Amino acid sequence: MNILDIIAKKRDKKELSKEEIEYFITGYTNGEIPDYQAAALVMAIYLNGMSMEETTNLTLAMAHSGDILDLSDLGIVVDKHSTGGVGDKITLILMPIMAALGVPVAKMSGRGLGFTGGTADKLESIPGYRTNISIEEFKNNVKEIGISLITQTGNLAPADKKLYALRDTISCTSSIPLISSSIMSKKIAAGANKIVLDVTCGDGAFMKTKEEAEELASVMKQIGTLAGKETVCIITPMQQPLGYSVGNTLEVIEAIEALKGNMQEDVKEVVLELGSHILKLAGKGESLQENKQKIENCIASNLAYEKFLTLVEKQGGDSSYCKDTNKFKKAKYEMNIISEQDGYLQEMKASFIGKAACLLGAGRIQKEDSIDMSAGIILHHKVGDMVKKGDIIATLYTNQESKLEEAKSIVEEAIKI
Amino acid sequence: MNILDIIAKKRDKKELSKEEIEYFITGYTNGEIPDYQAAALVMAIYLNGMSMEETTNLTLAMAHSGDILDLSDLGIVVDKHSTGGVGDKITLILMPIMAALGVPVAKMSGRGLGFTGGTADKLESIPGYRTNISIEEFKNNVKEIGISLITQTGNLAPADKKLYALRDTISCTSSIPLISSSIMSKKIAAGANKIVLDVTCGDGAFMKTKEEAEELASVMKQIGTLAGKETVCIITPMQQPLGYSVGNTLEVIEAIEALKGNMQEDVKEVVLELGSHILKLAGKGESLQENKQKIENCIASNLAYEKFLTLVEKQGGDSSYCKDTNKFKKAKYEMNIISEQDGYLQEMKASFIGKAACLLGAGRIQKEDSIDMSAGIILHHKVGDMVKKGDIIATLYTNQESKLEEAKSIVEEAIKI
Repeated sequence: MNILDIIAKKRDKKELSKEEIEYFITGYTNGEIPDYQAAALVMAIYLNGMSMEETTNLTLAMAHSGDILDLSDLGIVVDKHSTGGVGDKITLILMPIMAALGVPVAKMSGRGLGFTGGTADKLESIPGYRTNISIEEFKNNVKEIGISLITQTGNLAPADKKLYALRDTISCTSSIPLISSSIMSKKIAAGANKIVLDVTCGDGAFMKTKEEAEELASVMKQIGTLAGKETVCIITPMQQPLGYSVGNTLEVIEAIEALKGNMQEDVKEVVLELGSHILKLAGKGESLQENKQKIENCIASNLAYEKFLTLVEKQGGDSSYCKDTNKFKKAKYEMNIISEQDGYLQEMKASFIGKAACLLGAGRIQKEDSIDMSAGIILHHKVGDMVKKGDIIATLYTNQESKLEEAKSIVEEAIKI
Repeated sequence: MNILDIIAKKRDKKELSKEEIEYFITGYTNGEIPDYQAAALVMAIYLNGMSMEETTNLTLAMAHSGDILDLSDLGIVVDKHSTGGVGDKITLILMPIMAALGVPVAKMSGRGLGFTGGTADKLESIPGYRTNISIEEFKNNVKEIGISLITQTGNLAPADKKLYALRDTISCTSSIPLISSSIMSKKIAAGANKIVLDVTCGDGAFMKTKEEAEELASVMKQIGTLAGKETVCIITPMQQPLGYSVGNTLEVIEAIEALKGNMQEDVKEVVLELGSHILKLAGKGESLQENKQKIENCIASNLAYEKFLTLVEKQGGDSSYCKDTNKFKKAKYEMNIISEQDGYLQEMKASFIGKAACLLGAGRIQKEDSIDMSAGIILHHKVGDMVKKGDIIATLYTNQESKLEEAKSIVEEAIKI
């Protein structure tokens, strides 16, 4: 077997065998196959596609390129993953609820590129919260309090890390076999028994159309099945940002408010939908309708909020910030976006809002960039709201005054009244 | 402009602009664009193709990536190029004839990979012949004696050198836009005014079918026209080796014999065909038929042979080897391939004969390999000949006795009686 023949086979639209895919992944991970050969193969995969069997074999080869976490002593661990969006703070709200309802939550989350930080970054805006604890402490926390949320750690799916970074530099991100195998390999390596996937769809998401989102969802579900991991996919819209905040500290505050019962309608819908499926997969109730009721009751009883406080304390965070969110450090500069007319808010393009938040300091452009936790945007209106001339539509927060004007014009472009 | 957008454009089957192609070639040549981004773009070009305009712009960008030889003071220089084959010694025969007929010949030739050495290697089998003289000496020789044959020198089309090497490592050699731009960029950089191309076709050639050869010929002709270089393409079959010898010294001896008038029919056909077109392009005669007669007369008059001797002496070679070819060093070991039956020689696969010659030491597998000048194969019969049981079909020559048996079985596989 050699890489030239493997590249030529995919170039000629033929199906790669399990052994050929493993040969590539092993060789690429250990550096024997150079980036340029991987780049040629990835472009051929992008253009000529992969069968379900090839995609599953690619997923499993990447999952097994490093360690596979063994969470079997924690019970049925249901992992949740979102393909990302703007203002997506669902993990912060949903996972404490699940833990409060008795589902063991052992979840690793990524850091973010573009838009805002990822879940791990957001958690770090709580002073003291340690996202990079050891696997042992991670598992112990789950055993003791039923939940641990950390950053991706250990040598999990190193092949995916390399391929993901490569794809970014050769315009090969938006390929369904490559996206689905990347996501699923990480989930499998992270030890999940069952997987709930939130495939976002729309302007602020990776998948722009419903058809693309459905195809990605279908492929990931099939990979899950072929890999022996029961998988449920939900497709959620991402035209406007989710909830009312975009940014790291700002989203943590919204999540805390939500756990206290003050949840935006669009956020609630996603939480109930994903949560009801997780409960079902975890064996906590067959009826999705009843599961949704359990989630509502759990929030109302304050148990989910208390679970969140327990989590923060267990991970070294200062929970007094959660109890009094005014303690969070605020950005030095703010600027309101004012409506210049009466009317209905017709559109608020998520991608533009995300871009503006990133510009204000909430996100990274390069991996090494640091994040400004307090930067971001608060949305005072959602699509469909009636607004009057002079109403504040959104407020920008940043520590770099020079960025305000450009961010303002981006947000104004996002909004149609 | 950035390389990510350029890759994405070709990935999406869109046409690249002149500026985008130049941006890529400049960046790749100076090392700002890494191999893996070039590899992704090359695979996208391979799979999605290029328009004639793109292919021409790629050719010109590669031609201008280094020096462009100025041969304008030599008159109308007609360059000749063959896409390669087994036993192809046409340059060695044709170019002295052209020079003898008053066409200035300033030709650079490559070294070979696979099969046997290239024209430059073959010339070096004449003791003392210097193929790597300076551009100044090269041009002076043309002025003084009307001909110089040397190896590729100077900083000509460095982008092509890099891309050609890359294509080899990512299974992207057999693409018409990439092959044609590679050949034509080198010809343009080498200062040709007019170009005659010999596109070989068949088992021993790069293009296996007549259709592929015709497409390549058509694309190169169009590039030539668009680049302002009158270009003629001839398609010649390469099913069996050309002439009766395959190897470096062996082919030089055949070329000398041919210049003395002892020319194999298949060699003669190619020489007359290409030569008549070169004469026409050089303004030495409009009628191809009359041009062919001029070539025959030139050989009969011994002028072409004498021009070859003058060339060898001018380049520092010992012409006594040409006058008495028995002086050439012979290989230590030889082995005859004997016919085991009566019949007609039906097939002699060029690719197999080339492979056997390479194994005997006549060719390189890696760029750095050295060549055994005396190794190779003499063919005593051509396709169509009647042979009897016990007749010698071919003789193998090598300095590595251990290779004889394997080479013998390859040659036997090539032959059908």
